[in-house]
Amino acid sequence: MDTIKIFTPATVANVSCGFDVLGLCLDTVGDEMIISKTVTKGITISKIVGQHLPLEATKNVAGVAALALLKKTDIDYGFDLQIYKKIKPGSGIGSSAASAAGAVFGINKLLGNPFSSRELVSFAMEGEKLASGTAHADNVAPALLGGFTLVRSYAPLDIIKINAPKELYVTVIHPQIEVKTADARSVLKQKVTLKETVEQLGNLGGLISGLYTNDYDLIGRSLHDKIVEPLRAILIPEFDIVKNRCKHAGALGSGISGSGPSIFALSKGQNTAQKVAEVMGATYKKVGIDFDIHLSKVNSEGIKILS
Amino acid sequence: MDTIKIFTPATVANVSCGFDVLGLCLDTVGDEMIISKTVTKGITISKIVGQHLPLEATKNVAGVAALALLKKTDIDYGFDLQIYKKIKPGSGIGSSAASAAGAVFGINKLLGNPFSSRELVSFAMEGEKLASGTAHADNVAPALLGGFTLVRSYAPLDIIKINAPKELYVTVIHPQIEVKTADARSVLKQKVTLKETVEQLGNLGGLISGLYTNDYDLIGRSLHDKIVEPLRAILIPEFDIVKNRCKHAGALGSGISGSGPSIFALSKGQNTAQKVAEVMGATYKKVGIDFDIHLSKVNSEGIKILS
Repeated sequence: MDTIKIFTPATVANVSCGFDVLGLCLDTVGDEMIISKTVTKGITISKIVGQHLPLEATKNVAGVAALALLKKTDIDYGFDLQIYKKIKPGSGIGSSAASAAGAVFGINKLLGNPFSSRELVSFAMEGEKLASGTAHADNVAPALLGGFTLVRSYAPLDIIKINAPKELYVTVIHPQIEVKTADARSVLKQKVTLKETVEQLGNLGGLISGLYTNDYDLIGRSLHDKIVEPLRAILIPEFDIVKNRCKHAGALGSGISGSGPSIFALSKGQNTAQKVAEVMGATYKKVGIDFDIHLSKVNSEGIKILS
Repeated sequence: MDTIKIFTPATVANVSCGFDVLGLCLDTVGDEMIISKTVTKGITISKIVGQHLPLEATKNVAGVAALALLKKTDIDYGFDLQIYKKIKPGSGIGSSAASAAGAVFGINKLLGNPFSSRELVSFAMEGEKLASGTAHADNVAPALLGGFTLVRSYAPLDIIKINAPKELYVTVIHPQIEVKTADARSVLKQKVTLKETVEQLGNLGGLISGLYTNDYDLIGRSLHDKIVEPLRAILIPEFDIVKNRCKHAGALGSGISGSGPSIFALSKGQNTAQKVAEVMGATYKKVGIDFDIHLSKVNSEGIKILS
C-alpha cells in the first residue's frame, strides 16, 4: 500500500468538569487527507484545500507531527500529504489536532503499524505544540483513539479510552466570532478553592461512572464545570442563553468546546440532539451571528480509512 | 422480626486522589450491633461494649442518626441499640460512621425497608455531624452501600456505588498516635493551583476507570494525591517510609485513611496485601509505636445481617 485516504475527525476537548483531561471524538465533521509514499525522504505537503495554511512541513501542524514520527524511523523514503480542510481553524473543535493526528495515523498505516496509539498521540502532540504553544493531547487523543479519552498524566503520557454509551449524541454550534487563545487563557485563574476542586472531582467521577454504566441521567447530573466555564463564558455571546435552552430542549448538559467559541451539548438520542441544534441555531439567528452546526454520535473508532 | 444483629464495617475515606469524594468499605473490621423494637417510643442505648461512649441517644452518633430516621416515621414504638465497638474511635477508619450507619440500617430493616439507601445515608450523616461537626458522607456511604462510593454532590445528595475488582485487597495500619481532627483540618490549604486540580482530576478519572475495567495497573498509576496527602503526611510519623515500603512490597499504591493516622494500601491479591501488612508493621515496630493491622477484601455489600 503506497497511498491511503482517511477521514480525520473533529473533537471536543475540555468536556465540562473534565477540563484539560477529558475529550471526545465526533463523527460527522472532519478533514480528509491523502497520504502517499514518496521516493524522496522527508515530508512534503502538495495540496491544502479549504484553508490558507503553510505548505512548508516545518510550519504546518500535520508536517511537524509527521516529522516527529519520521525521526523515530530509519526509512529511506518519505511521504506526501494532501489535506482537505473542512474543520474551520479557531472553531474550538480540534482543527489542528485533526491534521496532526491524521498525518501520523496515515503514515503509521503505510509503514505497517510499527507505532502504538500512545506513540502516535505523542507525535501528534508535537503538531499541537506548533499550533498552540503547548503539546497538549486533549484533541489528538480522541481523534486517534475515538470515544472519550482521559489524559490521566503527561509525564509519563497515560491516556485512557472510555467507550461512549450507544445513544449519546453531540450537538456542536460554532458561532462565527473569534475568541483569541490568549484571551481564553488570560481569563483563567491560576488558583482555585479546595471546595471547587472537590466539586469538580465529584462531577468528573460521576461523568466517568455514567459513561461506563450507560447512565445518561448521571452523565447529565455531572456535566458541571464551576472552575473554567464561568470565566470563559463571558467571551462567548449568548452562552448562558444557549446553555439554558439546550437544557430545556432535553440536553443532558452542555459546555464550551475546547477554549471556544464552539458550544457542545450532549443528548440521549438523535431526536433530542436535533431539537438542541434547533434552539442553538435559533439563538444566534436572532442576534444575527452566523454559525455552523454539527450533530454527531460519539465516534467510537476515531480516524477512518476511506480508501 | 423484632430484633436484628448486624456487622457494621469500618471504611476508608479520602481514597488518595478521591479526597472528600471517594470511600471504600472494609470486610474484616467492624462493630456489631443488636437493634430491637421497644414498646416505648424513641431511641434507647442499653449497652456499649468496648469503648466509653455516651448512652444518651442525643449525645451518641448512633442515637442521633436513629433519631433522624425516626423523625420521618409516625410509629408508636421505638428501638433499643446495643453497640459492640471493635473499631477504635479516632483511628481514621470510620468508627463513628459504622455506628451511625448500623443504627439506621438495622432500624430500616425492622421497619420493613421503607427508606432508600440514599435516605439512610442522609440520616447517618446526622450522626457524623455530631461526631465531627460536618454532615459528611465519606464513611457512612461506603458502610451502607459497600464497594467504593463516590459522593458526586451534597446538594442534592448524589452517591454512586462502584464495584471493586474481585482481587482488590486493602491493608490498613493504625499507628497508635493521636491526630487531632482540628490539626488535620488546619494543615489544609484553602486554595490549590489549577495545575494541581487538573492532575487530581486526571488521577481520579484514571482510578474510577480502573475500578470499572478491573485494570489494577491503572488503579496503581492513579493513586496519587498531591493536594492533601503531602500536607497531612507530616502529622503521621514514618508516613513516607511506610508508603515507599508498601510500593516495594508490591502494593498498587497507598495513602492516608480518612484524616489519619491510619494508612491504607491497595494490592492485587491477598498474598501481596499480606506482604504489605508485614512491611507496614515492621516499620512501626522498629520505632516503637504500637499498631493494629487490618487486611481485607473490599466489602462489596456493606453492612451484613448476622441474625
